[in-house]
Amino acid sequence: MKGKAQTSQAILRYENGSAEWKEDTIAAEYPVTIKLNGDEFVTMVCTPDYIEDMAIGYLASEGIIASFNEIKELRVDDKNGYVHVTLTKNIDHLHQQMQNKRYITSCCGMSRQSFVFAADVKTTKTMHTRQVVIAPDDCFRLMADMQQAAETFQETGGVHNAALCTLDGIVLMRMDIGRHNALDKIYGYCLKHDISLQDKIIVFSGRLSSEILLKVGKIGCEVVLSKSAPTERALELAKELEITSIGFIRAGSLNVYTVPERVVLP
Amino acid sequence: MKGKAQTSQAILRYENGSAEWKEDTIAAEYPVTIKLNGDEFVTMVCTPDYIEDMAIGYLASEGIIASFNEIKELRVDDKNGYVHVTLTKNIDHLHQQMQNKRYITSCCGMSRQSFVFAADVKTTKTMHTRQVVIAPDDCFRLMADMQQAAETFQETGGVHNAALCTLDGIVLMRMDIGRHNALDKIYGYCLKHDISLQDKIIVFSGRLSSEILLKVGKIGCEVVLSKSAPTERALELAKELEITSIGFIRAGSLNVYTVPERVVLP
Repeated sequence: MKGKAQTSQAILRYENGSAEWKEDTIAAEYPVTIKLNGDEFVTMVCTPDYIEDMAIGYLASEGIIASFNEIKELRVDDKNGYVHVTLTKNIDHLHQQMQNKRYITSCCGMSRQSFVFAADVKTTKTMHTRQVVIAPDDCFRLMADMQQAAETFQETGGVHNAALCTLDGIVLMRMDIGRHNALDKIYGYCLKHDISLQDKIIVFSGRLSSEILLKVGKIGCEVVLSKSAPTERALELAKELEITSIGFIRAGSLNVYTVPERVVLP
Repeated sequence: MKGKAQTSQAILRYENGSAEWKEDTIAAEYPVTIKLNGDEFVTMVCTPDYIEDMAIGYLASEGIIASFNEIKELRVDDKNGYVHVTLTKNIDHLHQQMQNKRYITSCCGMSRQSFVFAADVKTTKTMHTRQVVIAPDDCFRLMADMQQAAETFQETGGVHNAALCTLDGIVLMRMDIGRHNALDKIYGYCLKHDISLQDKIIVFSGRLSSEILLKVGKIGCEVVLSKSAPTERALELAKELEITSIGFIRAGSLNVYTVPERVVLP
């Protein structure tokens, strides 16, 4: 693992009818394999920073650990791209297989009909509380804060940014080439440092897909903001998990898709 | 499965200081599970169109089938989101497990050092040929063609578009909310109809990540165009697979990242 979020390399640049070789900044992309009690568990392709936090966040969001205390030892092998995790408990084979087992929903009236995977049903939290109250101007300000911070940290384009915020501003910001890795990095850090999540807001640079909504539901945040569009299933999940989802946040306009009760209009 | 790529729903739109409820178009997102000889094989979240092609393309690109003839029967169960595939051969358990097994690369000199998964090493083709020769103006034209076609077909934003092209224009175009599903839909169609791929160009709307480059290498195309940025590992793979990758195609400028021999400069 190179430990660098971006790298430089020679490219052939064509502009205004002529071409020349120049150095360009490219986003790094690195495979990391989590080994759990000695066994290969998952390989994720990510931006090579905050790997320890990402592994913790991933294991928690997949329901492998119920708390940070269940990790007895965690060692990142930068050179070969492995994270060796020893848990305080055994995980059986069945448990591992559950991860990708489909959750079969029957007809109407059944809870969590929008869910595909059985593991997600177990690990997502429904946000019954209404601790966060947010105005459109807060959304514009937090989105602007995140975009400005993102520009400071990278020149490569094409990475996803996620910020954990309060109404006062950004608490923690992470980026990654993988959609949900940035959220896992935030989650893992908060678990390790015992930072409360329910009273915070997630600001995400990319589209609100179902995997992002699931991740927000696993982390346990009441509100998610995006500058981009949601998908249908993401909105079904947001409704079911009672997450306020706000998208297309751009120059004075935005869309509130779900649970508008947390939004104060002027 | 609803069979519709987009749907409509009520949202709270805030603009210029005031809010109102209005109907908005949202991208559909649907889980489909491929069952192989009766067993659950994979669940993919996708845009619900061209499901049969996507399943065929996916199975071929994962190396489960070596040709379209190996599919004895394929039945799409729209209602429940299943694709039932019966192969002309048995696939053993080990074979299935291989899919996510990490490919351990030793030190220098070894072939395919950039690969993470063993299955990818088997199914990607190195493009030794130089059948396609492309000029910057071809790139601008094909990218414009794709963007215009994309606008005609969708209003939701946030989906990925992929087009299979010759220098004369678009042969086939598919879109999906999942990055590589659009490419699987193209691949499956071509396998079913015995359309040659090596002499074609892939135009992709999103970032050139390693998974996109792997997919292009599995499909077996010499050239991939994108309007967005590549990642480091995508470029390593492109070099290794001898794929010409061209990115940041915008208003008269572009970057050639790998195998520039196929690009004719004015």
